[in-house]
Amino acid sequence: MKLWGGRFQKPTDPVFEEFGRSLESDQRLVVHDLETCLAHIKMLKEQSVLPEVEAAKLTDALETMLSELESGSPVEGDDEDIHSWVERILKERVGELASSIRIGRSRNDLVVTDFRLYVMAACREIQALLRELQATLVRRAEESKSSCLPGYTHLQRAQPVLLAHHLLAHFWSLERDHRRFGQCFDEADCCILGAGALAGSSWPVDPSISAKELGFSRILQNSLDGVSDRDFALQFLFCCATCATHLSRMAQELVLWSSSEFGFVRFDDAWSTGSSLMPQKKNPDPAELIRGKTGLFLGNLVELLTTVKALPLAYNRDLQQDKPPVFRSKEELSACLQVMNGTMATLEFKTQVMQAAAQDKGLLITDLADVLVRQGLPFSEAHHLAGRTVSDPDNLSGEEKSKVDSAWSELTLEKALKSRAHPGAAGPDSVKRQLESAREILSL
Amino acid sequence: MKLWGGRFQKPTDPVFEEFGRSLESDQRLVVHDLETCLAHIKMLKEQSVLPEVEAAKLTDALETMLSELESGSPVEGDDEDIHSWVERILKERVGELASSIRIGRSRNDLVVTDFRLYVMAACREIQALLRELQATLVRRAEESKSSCLPGYTHLQRAQPVLLAHHLLAHFWSLERDHRRFGQCFDEADCCILGAGALAGSSWPVDPSISAKELGFSRILQNSLDGVSDRDFALQFLFCCATCATHLSRMAQELVLWSSSEFGFVRFDDAWSTGSSLMPQKKNPDPAELIRGKTGLFLGNLVELLTTVKALPLAYNRDLQQDKPPVFRSKEELSACLQVMNGTMATLEFKTQVMQAAAQDKGLLITDLADVLVRQGLPFSEAHHLAGRTVSDPDNLSGEEKSKVDSAWSELTLEKALKSRAHPGAAGPDSVKRQLESAREILSL
Amino acid sequence: MKLWGGRFQKPTDPVFEEFGRSLESDQRLVVHDLETCLAHIKMLKEQSVLPEVEAAKLTDALETMLSELESGSPVEGDDEDIHSWVERILKERVGELASSIRIGRSRNDLVVTDFRLYVMAACREIQALLRELQATLVRRAEESKSSCLPGYTHLQRAQPVLLAHHLLAHFWSLERDHRRFGQCFDEADCCILGAGALAGSSWPVDPSISAKELGFSRILQNSLDGVSDRDFALQFLFCCATCATHLSRMAQELVLWSSSEFGFVRFDDAWSTGSSLMPQKKNPDPAELIRGKTGLFLGNLVELLTTVKALPLAYNRDLQQDKPPVFRSKEELSACLQVMNGTMATLEFKTQVMQAAAQDKGLLITDLADVLVRQGLPFSEAHHLAGRTVSDPDNLSGEEKSKVDSAWSELTLEKALKSRAHPGAAGPDSVKRQLESAREILSL
Amino acid sequence: MKLWGGRFQKPTDPVFEEFGRSLESDQRLVVHDLETCLAHIKMLKEQSVLPEVEAAKLTDALETMLSELESGSPVEGDDEDIHSWVERILKERVGELASSIRIGRSRNDLVVTDFRLYVMAACREIQALLRELQATLVRRAEESKSSCLPGYTHLQRAQPVLLAHHLLAHFWSLERDHRRFGQCFDEADCCILGAGALAGSSWPVDPSISAKELGFSRILQNSLDGVSDRDFALQFLFCCATCATHLSRMAQELVLWSSSEFGFVRFDDAWSTGSSLMPQKKNPDPAELIRGKTGLFLGNLVELLTTVKALPLAYNRDLQQDKPPVFRSKEELSACLQVMNGTMATLEFKTQVMQAAAQDKGLLITDLADVLVRQGLPFSEAHHLAGRTVSDPDNLSGEEKSKVDSAWSELTLEKALKSRAHPGAAGPDSVKRQLESAREILSL
Repeated sequence: MKLWGGRFQKPTDPVFEEFGRSLESDQRLVVHDLETCLAHIKMLKEQSVLPEVEAAKLTDALETMLSELESGSPVEGDDEDIHSWVERILKERVGELASSIRIGRSRNDLVVTDFRLYVMAACREIQALLRELQATLVRRAEESKSSCLPGYTHLQRAQPVLLAHHLLAHFWSLERDHRRFGQCFDEADCCILGAGALAGSSWPVDPSISAKELGFSRILQNSLDGVSDRDFALQFLFCCATCATHLSRMAQELVLWSSSEFGFVRFDDAWSTGSSLMPQKKNPDPAELIRGKTGLFLGNLVELLTTVKALPLAYNRDLQQDKPPVFRSKEELSACLQVMNGTMATLEFKTQVMQAAAQDKGLLITDLADVLVRQGLPFSEAHHLAGRTVSDPDNLSGEEKSKVDSAWSELTLEKALKSRAHPGAAGPDSVKRQLESAREILSL
Repeated sequence: MKLWGGRFQKPTDPVFEEFGRSLESDQRLVVHDLETCLAHIKMLKEQSVLPEVEAAKLTDALETMLSELESGSPVEGDDEDIHSWVERILKERVGELASSIRIGRSRNDLVVTDFRLYVMAACREIQALLRELQATLVRRAEESKSSCLPGYTHLQRAQPVLLAHHLLAHFWSLERDHRRFGQCFDEADCCILGAGALAGSSWPVDPSISAKELGFSRILQNSLDGVSDRDFALQFLFCCATCATHLSRMAQELVLWSSSEFGFVRFDDAWSTGSSLMPQKKNPDPAELIRGKTGLFLGNLVELLTTVKALPLAYNRDLQQDKPPVFRSKEELSACLQVMNGTMATLEFKTQVMQAAAQDKGLLITDLADVLVRQGLPFSEAHHLAGRTVSDPDNLSGEEKSKVDSAWSELTLEKALKSRAHPGAAGPDSVKRQLESAREILSL
Repeated sequence: MKLWGGRFQKPTDPVFEEFGRSLESDQRLVVHDLETCLAHIKMLKEQSVLPEVEAAKLTDALETMLSELESGSPVEGDDEDIHSWVERILKERVGELASSIRIGRSRNDLVVTDFRLYVMAACREIQALLRELQATLVRRAEESKSSCLPGYTHLQRAQPVLLAHHLLAHFWSLERDHRRFGQCFDEADCCILGAGALAGSSWPVDPSISAKELGFSRILQNSLDGVSDRDFALQFLFCCATCATHLSRMAQELVLWSSSEFGFVRFDDAWSTGSSLMPQKKNPDPAELIRGKTGLFLGNLVELLTTVKALPLAYNRDLQQDKPPVFRSKEELSACLQVMNGTMATLEFKTQVMQAAAQDKGLLITDLADVLVRQGLPFSEAHHLAGRTVSDPDNLSGEEKSKVDSAWSELTLEKALKSRAHPGAAGPDSVKRQLESAREILSL
Repeated sequence: MKLWGGRFQKPTDPVFEEFGRSLESDQRLVVHDLETCLAHIKMLKEQSVLPEVEAAKLTDALETMLSELESGSPVEGDDEDIHSWVERILKERVGELASSIRIGRSRNDLVVTDFRLYVMAACREIQALLRELQATLVRRAEESKSSCLPGYTHLQRAQPVLLAHHLLAHFWSLERDHRRFGQCFDEADCCILGAGALAGSSWPVDPSISAKELGFSRILQNSLDGVSDRDFALQFLFCCATCATHLSRMAQELVLWSSSEFGFVRFDDAWSTGSSLMPQKKNPDPAELIRGKTGLFLGNLVELLTTVKALPLAYNRDLQQDKPPVFRSKEELSACLQVMNGTMATLEFKTQVMQAAAQDKGLLITDLADVLVRQGLPFSEAHHLAGRTVSDPDNLSGEEKSKVDSAWSELTLEKALKSRAHPGAAGPDSVKRQLESAREILSL
């Protein structure tokens, strides 16, 4: 069924029909579409546009459709889009009356409203998955107790850090993702029913009624903008892309740490794979796949930014392309978060290997320089002297040697960690406070 | 001057030195760097790490440098980066003491703090430019009174809208940009001094003192995250890219509207160009350049997202590449906003041409269908009949004709506009309320 | 069935199993995979690695599978990937012998070989669709005879051009696409069987035998590079993206030209759509959808470029993500080309409207200046004077007026077009030669 | 000086003037612009459009300008673009005659011709830098003799490879870059002088004369396409982006290999940096910067692809934005190649550490399975048994143990490498042949 065609004298070419059809992709919106129809009818009834008895008939039929869908009834057919499917099924139930759902609205405002509901739900779902992964990180951090490992810059060993501190670093980046998805929810939380095709409606529609019915906090401010605006979708794709870069960084570390050379972790058998050729292999595939999918999230963001570039107001059919990247990003990010959670939850930390690496004396050279400064050397001199104990130990003067020896006598790995006690630092006191904040955030 | 080198036995190769140098680009940070140094010294003094007299000497010298810069003194030299430049100049003034500014901090936390200050200032500057453009749109909307033009979907004439409504559509998209830059400010508003190179400091630093001094609302939560996190820069680039898509859409309309075929606007002589070959040409170059620069903002966002992909914690030198795209996006977006403002402020709207186009009877066919529905036809039938008055007027039955004629008799352009009165609609009542809201937002 | 697992003591977690499964996407490779297996077995037999009788059994079974697939037998199951599916089915037919197809090769070299065959076929398929669209453009250009329209720069009317010239402009950009897909074919045309997992094989494999069998022109040069290299896929995605920008430009023109304001074309009823709300609408949706999909092709290119960034040699599981963007780009570009072809083939050119627009005297001002130069004025003076005939006609001196009048007397639209006769110019002689070249390229 | 303005009654607004000015960026084209002017004048003279004496005057003046530039004379002024600068200087020398260089051409065809010459030169320059890096890889490969190291998949040790084989893997990926830049050269190698603004010229211009003079192999086929086409620039940006991904992969390995954990290489003091805080650090900055810049090349490609999206024919001012990304990519890629070359040329390979890692018995498990197959086990069984020698050695049956022991007795690292002898394999015979091919390619 087509919702148009009055002035067309030829059927649509099948190649073009197939090209333009969005039903398969957009059936993800079906529940939102039915809810939006219900809210619209309620509004039309309250505004006396639709007689009560007609409204009741439509409402009954739509609610039946909703419950059928919930029982697993499929969305099928060669309809152009999800809205045509809804109206076709509705027509099978209530006859010509079905077309009354189009009074005072257009597919242009309908589809944006559906899509906003989808994005709002997606934000909440991803926030919940973020919380799960954050909780796993907190649990693993607590279990890791006082284990420490080298902290790296430039992938060179730099200074010692607690393993818990390292795990919590990722907790905080996910916390930013959680906040951003919250902002994205707010951005999407605006009902644009009433915008019609582009100019609003000649019927006495009241957007606030349908908005309230659907749980939106805000309504449209301008109909042209309402049907043209896809900022909420862009923002969603950006949130996904940024979150994906965070996961890619965690993933990269897991790949590194599971190598023979680092040997800091062992993937669980249930969360790794083998080789069809090399029977000794145990591969960190979950991490690699997550890292590899980063490109997908960037690509989806680029896709929609490019699509909206230079479109004049108001609706253009280009905008049909707004949903596939959002659907893909949402589904793939949900999967990545679950897989990262499963991997992280079952990972074996080889804390003895980490601890051994943390014994590398080079990790304390900063502290050595700090002690030398406390002993009265200017910073640059202390830094230089400490450096020479590594690069040129044989040419230190006797005085230099004794200064350095006396400084070393004050230093241990434990002291170095302990001394990093200020907010945000890598030592046990700071980590204890971070864990408390984290538990509060998670309501644990 | 290099801030390192104790263990190096060869000078840096000049090709690599040039490759790694960031001074030219990063001198945009110099004022922030000096302010950060001042705040750091104040903290070191209050925490009794630095004796008062040394702190005073350093403070005096840094403040002198600040005021010299404000008087136009240049940042020059073959220093590696802006921090090395600051310390070199400082050393010329206070000798070895200069290196004390490195106590309890590293370039890793310093540069992020500088960069966050830059992004915060950039957000405020862009927000101000957005407000200017929004004010111009409001002014032009008010001046346009009851002028109307066709509203378009698919670039086909669809329904009539007030010119003011069309201009305000852009006001609201810029309002979202304003909100987003505010969120970006909040994201950047976190002082990470104290993170040191990656693990915090063995000195009794108090991050909250320096944060307060610099006007930050929050401090770091985790040192590893603090030196690794570039979310604020990504968010800035995303805000710029989204804003650029809005400008590209306005620009696209200006290009269309200034064509002979539309003829809706005339660019001011001061805001357009001619041709070296075709003397009759008057080209909408400001709009084309703005539209053409959209790619730049997308490219910059992709650039940084790609750079941070899969970097293990904590600092990696790759992150030096975070600033050029941010600087470019900020500078280019500021310019685009000013140029759009100048163009919009001086644009001549040819309201008679618009008005004539708005007389196109096709624009009222939706209203015709609405009237037919009110007269009792089911929506689909009314829609079909209204369509046939366009595609197949000769084959209407007598009854159909009389229905249609009676419906037409109720319709005028003015009535159609007037009837679109609900919130967000394209008619005069809605526009009046939009203008009130807009003036309130702008505090006009 | 898994092709690995000897050392694993736990089953794969179902969430991860689902995450890593590629069968649904990669079944597009099944025919290539079977062909590659057949070629590999032939090589193993010729190199006396596999006894003739075993090779024959395997070959028979694989050929049966091939013909079953051709008869529509589906690829189904919960196998990890297409290679596991093939081996599982093969095992059902020939028992343990099935695993012999893994002798001397790995999934790493197998999948790249399959993928290269896919890309090669895709290049040829897209080249054929390009040729169809080019042929349509040539046909439409020939039909348009001497119709002319304004040529635009900055979307401002600039100089007259033949409609055929305009259509051929697009012919030539598609010709570059055709060339590029040919280069991409050559890039993909390299068999890397023999690379094994990463290091080649300890068996006496002869890559040139399997390459010849599969129709490849070249074989691998380095096994590490062989399993890591995805340049051919990047190049394919780039060719698609560039071609998509060409289509977006054609599409943009069709959208413009079908507007009421231009009125240069009318979309066929079979290649346009209507509105669910506005019965009078006839929308250029094929063009808008093609334009809107540009983002998809850019996104796919960004996706894979990002995925391969910074992967160490040799194979990493990230590379599983190489195929979905290639499949999407190939399928979507094929559809776009067919839809553009159908649209272009059925488009009605309103040549009278175009012709009327081409009468705009402004289009001849360049020619006016040229005549003034021929009459002895320096170019800059001629250009200036010609410009003033537009901007300030009332203030020309008597002498200027007579110069201009005399120049105008030499000018007509036809002469202007006729005079543009050199290679590549917009006039009839040049267009005739272009059409000859085009027909030769298309072997028409 | 402006090349237009006849019909303009107000000066350009300074904000817009600054916005539109391209002189600073485009002065990189100045030599090409002068050469193009010279070729154009020669053509005009030969076609008798320009009297010999005028042509001679212009030629002399332009040649003087060229030699002044070569002596370091700067390109300065507040001119709009490089073409205006050239004409202004020319006018200072020859008066009004200067404007004759505009006869029969426009800035639209001029700037594309300049730009194509730039891209052609850039391709050749980058090809030369690729050859240098390839030569360094060959030299280092030859020096590495029979050194071997573990080959990795999934960053897990997989099978042994010769270091030379590993280095040559990168040689071959650069060889593909070299080929691609050659194709890009061919794409750019087309003179479009004669296209004029968009429609060709009314003068009897002969594009083949100017093309020959400038060293182009081909001339324009269609003027509209000629001024609109930027495929050559897109292709250049793609070649740069792909090459950058190759460099990022080499860089990633250098970062990994220089870590304490791998310890396979040591960066030269002249090609690494230290830390302002941690005096023991030696950081692989050249590699990190190269890896970090990958984003820049992707961003530039996205930038231009986005810019050209949906531009109608012919020239639009958006296209001014085509050059900055090309200039940046060219300059940055040249630098990256030089820095990678310097780093690679001076890198210390710690072959003993590599060799020790290559002793890992796990690396021979594939070969173990191969031997078991040769001893008569089906592949899947052999693979399974070999796997259990790693995962579950204690539960092998006596028979299994003796099979395995007998298989191990045939295996050594040297034999494993030696057996990989077929084309492209990781063993010494294959590497010898690769080196011969490489030397031939480099004409060494």
